[in-house]
Amino acid sequence: MKYINELREGENIIEHYLCKSRQSMKSRNGKTYLSLKLQDKTGIVDAKVWELNNDIQSFQENDFIKVDAFVTTFNNDLQLNVKRIRRSREGEYDPADYIPSTEKNIEEMYQQLMAYIKTIKSPYIKKMLEEIFLRHPVISKEFKYHSAAKAMHHSYRGGLVEHTLSVTQLCEFLAPRYRFVDRDILIASAMLHDVGKVMELSDFPVNDYTDDGQLLGHLMIGAELIADTAAKIEGFPKRLETLLKHCMISHHGEFEYGSPKLPSTIEAFLLHCADNLDAKTNMIEDMLAADHTPGHWVGYHRMLQRNLCRSDYE
Amino acid sequence: MKYINELREGENIIEHYLCKSRQSMKSRNGKTYLSLKLQDKTGIVDAKVWELNNDIQSFQENDFIKVDAFVTTFNNDLQLNVKRIRRSREGEYDPADYIPSTEKNIEEMYQQLMAYIKTIKSPYIKKMLEEIFLRHPVISKEFKYHSAAKAMHHSYRGGLVEHTLSVTQLCEFLAPRYRFVDRDILIASAMLHDVGKVMELSDFPVNDYTDDGQLLGHLMIGAELIADTAAKIEGFPKRLETLLKHCMISHHGEFEYGSPKLPSTIEAFLLHCADNLDAKTNMIEDMLAADHTPGHWVGYHRMLQRNLCRSDYE
Amino acid sequence: MKYINELREGENIIEHYLCKSRQSMKSRNGKTYLSLKLQDKTGIVDAKVWELNNDIQSFQENDFIKVDAFVTTFNNDLQLNVKRIRRSREGEYDPADYIPSTEKNIEEMYQQLMAYIKTIKSPYIKKMLEEIFLRHPVISKEFKYHSAAKAMHHSYRGGLVEHTLSVTQLCEFLAPRYRFVDRDILIASAMLHDVGKVMELSDFPVNDYTDDGQLLGHLMIGAELIADTAAKIEGFPKRLETLLKHCMISHHGEFEYGSPKLPSTIEAFLLHCADNLDAKTNMIEDMLAADHTPGHWVGYHRMLQRNLCRSDYE
Amino acid sequence: MKYINELREGENIIEHYLCKSRQSMKSRNGKTYLSLKLQDKTGIVDAKVWELNNDIQSFQENDFIKVDAFVTTFNNDLQLNVKRIRRSREGEYDPADYIPSTEKNIEEMYQQLMAYIKTIKSPYIKKMLEEIFLRHPVISKEFKYHSAAKAMHHSYRGGLVEHTLSVTQLCEFLAPRYRFVDRDILIASAMLHDVGKVMELSDFPVNDYTDDGQLLGHLMIGAELIADTAAKIEGFPKRLETLLKHCMISHHGEFEYGSPKLPSTIEAFLLHCADNLDAKTNMIEDMLAADHTPGHWVGYHRMLQRNLCRSDYE
Amino acid sequence: MKYINELREGENIIEHYLCKSRQSMKSRNGKTYLSLKLQDKTGIVDAKVWELNNDIQSFQENDFIKVDAFVTTFNNDLQLNVKRIRRSREGEYDPADYIPSTEKNIEEMYQQLMAYIKTIKSPYIKKMLEEIFLRHPVISKEFKYHSAAKAMHHSYRGGLVEHTLSVTQLCEFLAPRYRFVDRDILIASAMLHDVGKVMELSDFPVNDYTDDGQLLGHLMIGAELIADTAAKIEGFPKRLETLLKHCMISHHGEFEYGSPKLPSTIEAFLLHCADNLDAKTNMIEDMLAADHTPGHWVGYHRMLQRNLCRSDYE
Amino acid sequence: MKYINELREGENIIEHYLCKSRQSMKSRNGKTYLSLKLQDKTGIVDAKVWELNNDIQSFQENDFIKVDAFVTTFNNDLQLNVKRIRRSREGEYDPADYIPSTEKNIEEMYQQLMAYIKTIKSPYIKKMLEEIFLRHPVISKEFKYHSAAKAMHHSYRGGLVEHTLSVTQLCEFLAPRYRFVDRDILIASAMLHDVGKVMELSDFPVNDYTDDGQLLGHLMIGAELIADTAAKIEGFPKRLETLLKHCMISHHGEFEYGSPKLPSTIEAFLLHCADNLDAKTNMIEDMLAADHTPGHWVGYHRMLQRNLCRSDYE
Repeated sequence: MKYINELREGENIIEHYLCKSRQSMKSRNGKTYLSLKLQDKTGIVDAKVWELNNDIQSFQENDFIKVDAFVTTFNNDLQLNVKRIRRSREGEYDPADYIPSTEKNIEEMYQQLMAYIKTIKSPYIKKMLEEIFLRHPVISKEFKYHSAAKAMHHSYRGGLVEHTLSVTQLCEFLAPRYRFVDRDILIASAMLHDVGKVMELSDFPVNDYTDDGQLLGHLMIGAELIADTAAKIEGFPKRLETLLKHCMISHHGEFEYGSPKLPSTIEAFLLHCADNLDAKTNMIEDMLAADHTPGHWVGYHRMLQRNLCRSDYE
Repeated sequence: MKYINELREGENIIEHYLCKSRQSMKSRNGKTYLSLKLQDKTGIVDAKVWELNNDIQSFQENDFIKVDAFVTTFNNDLQLNVKRIRRSREGEYDPADYIPSTEKNIEEMYQQLMAYIKTIKSPYIKKMLEEIFLRHPVISKEFKYHSAAKAMHHSYRGGLVEHTLSVTQLCEFLAPRYRFVDRDILIASAMLHDVGKVMELSDFPVNDYTDDGQLLGHLMIGAELIADTAAKIEGFPKRLETLLKHCMISHHGEFEYGSPKLPSTIEAFLLHCADNLDAKTNMIEDMLAADHTPGHWVGYHRMLQRNLCRSDYE
Repeated sequence: MKYINELREGENIIEHYLCKSRQSMKSRNGKTYLSLKLQDKTGIVDAKVWELNNDIQSFQENDFIKVDAFVTTFNNDLQLNVKRIRRSREGEYDPADYIPSTEKNIEEMYQQLMAYIKTIKSPYIKKMLEEIFLRHPVISKEFKYHSAAKAMHHSYRGGLVEHTLSVTQLCEFLAPRYRFVDRDILIASAMLHDVGKVMELSDFPVNDYTDDGQLLGHLMIGAELIADTAAKIEGFPKRLETLLKHCMISHHGEFEYGSPKLPSTIEAFLLHCADNLDAKTNMIEDMLAADHTPGHWVGYHRMLQRNLCRSDYE
Repeated sequence: MKYINELREGENIIEHYLCKSRQSMKSRNGKTYLSLKLQDKTGIVDAKVWELNNDIQSFQENDFIKVDAFVTTFNNDLQLNVKRIRRSREGEYDPADYIPSTEKNIEEMYQQLMAYIKTIKSPYIKKMLEEIFLRHPVISKEFKYHSAAKAMHHSYRGGLVEHTLSVTQLCEFLAPRYRFVDRDILIASAMLHDVGKVMELSDFPVNDYTDDGQLLGHLMIGAELIADTAAKIEGFPKRLETLLKHCMISHHGEFEYGSPKLPSTIEAFLLHCADNLDAKTNMIEDMLAADHTPGHWVGYHRMLQRNLCRSDYE
Repeated sequence: MKYINELREGENIIEHYLCKSRQSMKSRNGKTYLSLKLQDKTGIVDAKVWELNNDIQSFQENDFIKVDAFVTTFNNDLQLNVKRIRRSREGEYDPADYIPSTEKNIEEMYQQLMAYIKTIKSPYIKKMLEEIFLRHPVISKEFKYHSAAKAMHHSYRGGLVEHTLSVTQLCEFLAPRYRFVDRDILIASAMLHDVGKVMELSDFPVNDYTDDGQLLGHLMIGAELIADTAAKIEGFPKRLETLLKHCMISHHGEFEYGSPKLPSTIEAFLLHCADNLDAKTNMIEDMLAADHTPGHWVGYHRMLQRNLCRSDYE
Repeated sequence: MKYINELREGENIIEHYLCKSRQSMKSRNGKTYLSLKLQDKTGIVDAKVWELNNDIQSFQENDFIKVDAFVTTFNNDLQLNVKRIRRSREGEYDPADYIPSTEKNIEEMYQQLMAYIKTIKSPYIKKMLEEIFLRHPVISKEFKYHSAAKAMHHSYRGGLVEHTLSVTQLCEFLAPRYRFVDRDILIASAMLHDVGKVMELSDFPVNDYTDDGQLLGHLMIGAELIADTAAKIEGFPKRLETLLKHCMISHHGEFEYGSPKLPSTIEAFLLHCADNLDAKTNMIEDMLAADHTPGHWVGYHRMLQRNLCRSDYE
């Protein structure tokens, strides 16, 4: 397959892409044309269909399409001048090619993460993790392949399990290093901390906030999940439920990032640090990986509000 | 009864008070004495028991006690020199005298508030309000007499119903004045907005934050209550549940005041305005009412971060 | 009349519009053309005049013009390709069609607002209101039809009286509900709070900040108006003047919104709440009314810094 | 005279002081005594009158009194044990000894400041300065000896003229150094910038905020003074009045310091810089002057939120 | 020479400019063209080379080029349609025409600044200034012609010496006006405060941040320079070195502007005020000077976050 | 030895303590007495010497003293009524008993930390670490036993090595987990990040900020140390020096915590996270360890601005 990040000006290509958006437009001289945005897992490219015929009725947004096109440049960006276009047929393309995905082995990461459940000593917490990860109708199916964000960090297929595993491993490293830490609570909170994102964000290829996501957020959704699950487990200690919900709702660490409470227990604080470290370092990695310009500086990171710089020397 | 705000230097009194705190101390010359804080609904006064005998074994903190004492002054504050002291017996005192209470008729306010339930058109919302206010094991009993805060505003018996009624009436006034407002959602959210305080704050005479209160807060507790109640009502629309929970968790209006989401619907925004207006104006009223010094200025309000001034003129 | 929000691609129209801006430009191939912005009360549209002849000398910015044009699309926005254009003649158009205006009855709202003057008990305050609203050379004429803002809220003809009436009615509702409130001061301050906008903002069709508006602001202008009017009323109590000026200058409620003092009296605080509630809720209404896209979410509100959402369910 | 900052433990003194506060108190053993705060221009000291007789009826707060007392120590602070006390008689004391005062020559500074009026070229501005400084019934009398603040900076007799002169001299230095500066506006604004403090702060010995001071502030009072004075001067250009008022209300430079507008003209900006520099540097000088402890560090300055340090070396 | 700010639509020009950027682009119809940005000391203009021939191989970015072009307009901006282009030859142009430069006499300002060295009484400080300004291999050569910023203030050739002189003169004015000021420290700190910019910013024509500039900043670079220089001067008092470094690192005055310490000495505070005043006033001057639109208002200043206004009246 | 945290009311003790402060005071009845603060590694206690004799001439602040005293209570705190007192003689006490100290093995931690030097691959960085830790005249001697802060975290003997080791271990864990990380830079920066505290804070028993500490801070001191050491190592790459200094000055992570630059490299960011996590978690541990009150809540943490809570349940 010819990926979008491999296209070069002047080429003719015949390839399948995902059509993310489609608009009718009129040029200055009154001619109607189609403006599309095509996507695969390596990027996005604009395409223009200047000659409209019946084929353009065959597809809609979020369909896969087949294009025969010439690669040109407009305002410094590549653009496809489409000669022929039609909807792709099932089997002509592999969906995995069109969705950005972690480079790590999802299955392996998922097994590593699930293996932590067996290390939990509290029967109540262990039961809760099993209920949520193994038996919850949505989470047991979707957690493994979900992304961890729309655009910030780990915003690709498998990003949620990658981030969750990383935070959990970091918490395991930290648990024995500080006094007063309840390892069960810390590990369970790490595993659960972003589980609400399965409901907050719809899955690929849409990968956008759901209504519940925007109106409530994954902290609230996660806390409710803990409450509902605890209610199903006989004898689940009320205070333990509260401690787990506290870790959940406080893990953003600051009011302005949407935590209604600041971390007040040592587990809640460590979880916040681990989550923050992994999420932001992933952003830095992504920006360093994406940059191919000469020079040490790789540009301004809007979320982190600073320019980022490579550390090579000599 | 001789209320604490009626005590005058030089008097001898024999009266029953609530003992809020009790500490053994030693004076400079090595003598042990008891230092107490006594409370009734009008205020708090220090008391010292210089001569200790067996009677002091008869009571503990949060007991009612009977004192025979002389009213003196120390560092500008009144102080009781206790001559005799013992635990009060049931029937010797009326608990209502010892707990600060709204000056309005609690029963009447409660009836007015409950009457709003009948005005709700949505059968789902009406059912939810009935479940919570009339059938919830704790709320149906404790809501009526609860305070709305530990120290900020409406921090007295009946304060919760007083504040809730005021916010609901204000929302009723506002509902028809703006377009796009769903009156049912607004009124129900107003009635429910602080219901979580019944669990967040323990009741008088303790009136302090519970563990859940500090670790989760009444917004989270309230949202969970909505979720649990909706789960019990057949066919309760999922999105309606989300909209009500959004009003609940966003009603503090700002991240820094513990709302994990800003008000995004018109009802959520109006509820926030009404709540904020009533709570803060009650603080101003309290400070104006408490001040008896000459001059227009009544002092610095720590929460509002400003000096407050009476508006009399001429 | 064919309003701008009724134009559809592909139509030919002959209509009068207000010309808000006019610029000569040169296309890539060196040809000069005219670029115009045309406005009526429903919106704004770009227009291009490709063939220039003597008619284009007949009009200037802020003139009404008559166009014969074809409706096309450029970059997703409608655009008029103008074939013929000339200045409109008096009588060919109704100015009211070109200025955004409240949908409510201005005359009726104005009468309702003025009726409050009679309810004031203090002869001094009543006199001040009469002086300002009925006898001030500018305000008595312009207040009724003025807008309340350039772009924020109530930014249309009659918006000032609509907002002022709404704030005054809300204050009337609030006045008897809290202790220590001087109703005269509260109602008068509500009526006067934005009166300085008559001088801060020039009238339609320009509707932009005046020099005084930008250098001093309507709070200062309003306070000076109170001072000047009080000076004309014999025996006007000095402290009453101060209290009214305090309500005026503190009604934005926060330093960062340009209030040099925070509300320190209960009337000043209530006025601030009522103003804030009405202004911001109007912004939300406007955004909900303007949106016609599918889905609950209506977009990001820059001033309120959040996404807004409709509350429909089922 | 024996000044308060010269008192030493163990001395007996007979001296006149200003009685700033007076309270009756009762000691633990039930004895009533008087607690006073005595002041002269060098400081404040506590005094206790243990033996009460008729003499204590002879004086009130803000009276001058004569004491015969023994200097002792309590909690590290000096304290006067008063043996005899009575009200001072006119002529027994010189008021100037009891009010903190600038160390510079007030008369000379005042003449220097007034001399600037003659350097103004605009007849309108010159007239305004004459009206305010030479003919205003209150300012012409009180400006010269007033303090510039209650506690912050230049909070002593003559402090207002000292600060105003310093700011004006700095502005004179700056005026020719930057392009586009209207010297008349800058000098006049410097002279006038704190003139409203004459009304905002009552004079010594009280030196506290007036009602107008707290409800309006000296920026508003000053702007109103400019407006009233301009109204009296025939032909005073309206825009010049606006520019002067803009300098006045924006000279605190930030919203949070009570300026409703940020400096938008070059004169307003320079005035703000000069005022800020002189006021804060005066605070630093005061703290350096007051410190007599060994070591370079002189303590934490609450307003400036930092520790201050002397620059001596070697 | 025909400067860029003198170009008018419709002219043919033959002139030399500095080529700041150069990109190959392809038009919609597939034709390749060159897009250039040309600069002289008065501004920047876009240029397009539609007909490509061998001459375009003759130059690169940051070369001087000679163009024969027609001045046209695109999207309201001037644009050069280049007919012929080639690299300029040495001697055909004067580099001084292409770099924005102070309007004042650089040599004279530099002499004035250096003359301050002789006024320093401390032999150690005088030695340090001589070492840095007269003998440092880079600073002694580059300081005189350097700019003081990339874009903010004094961002032109000679801007560094202009700003440094102005701050030093202001400090000299201030030194005798406040008590406790060590003039030597204040003058030396003023002279040195931005010396690190010689290393932080590369020189014209590039005038961009160096790596060290971005990773360390001119405060750190300056402090290190003081340390290194003090190490070379025998007997340099350790505490004096600390005091000078403190002035250096605190001169931005606020943490958020990159000062790791707030000014704690009176010299550090005065230096900060003088630097802030001169830098910001220069920004205001620049904006007033650049504006040629009618009306008093000259636009919104992003750094100062406000609209700026001329003070003309009548 | 009888440690201060083992004292009980009513006991007579004869023991050696460190005298941290000493003041002469006078009681109300005019009698002079000595007020002392005595310290050992477990805490601080007040002591009063009512009967003064020649022995009190024998000691000063920061001397060790021997007291014969009776343990009493004043305002809820223990207090020593001293009967006899004299300066301790060398050998009568073990200094280690009087200085709060880490509970871990300092020697072992120090060896573990130094062992990291051998793992560094870059010869330049390895050389720098050897120069600083093994050969620097002050650091090689004092680093091992120094505290990491005056009061915040790890504010005890050995605290610096404990904190540094913990941060370094965390960085070692993180280094291989993220892409683009230069392990040498990260480990070296972790080892060096607080080394400037050896100069910023004087050693026990004083443990207070030095002048350099307050005027420059340990970030600046540390950066200068890197610069000086690099200058001594032939061929030390200039950019490597800059990268190490950037990690040093940015490790506080925010401007408001005194970092003049935000972390811009991935090593700088990871170091900041690790430092922040370890420092704050240590504060939480300390507060949990110090609390012996019943109930889950252990009080308000001023630095972290929140109440802290134990996680025990059931």
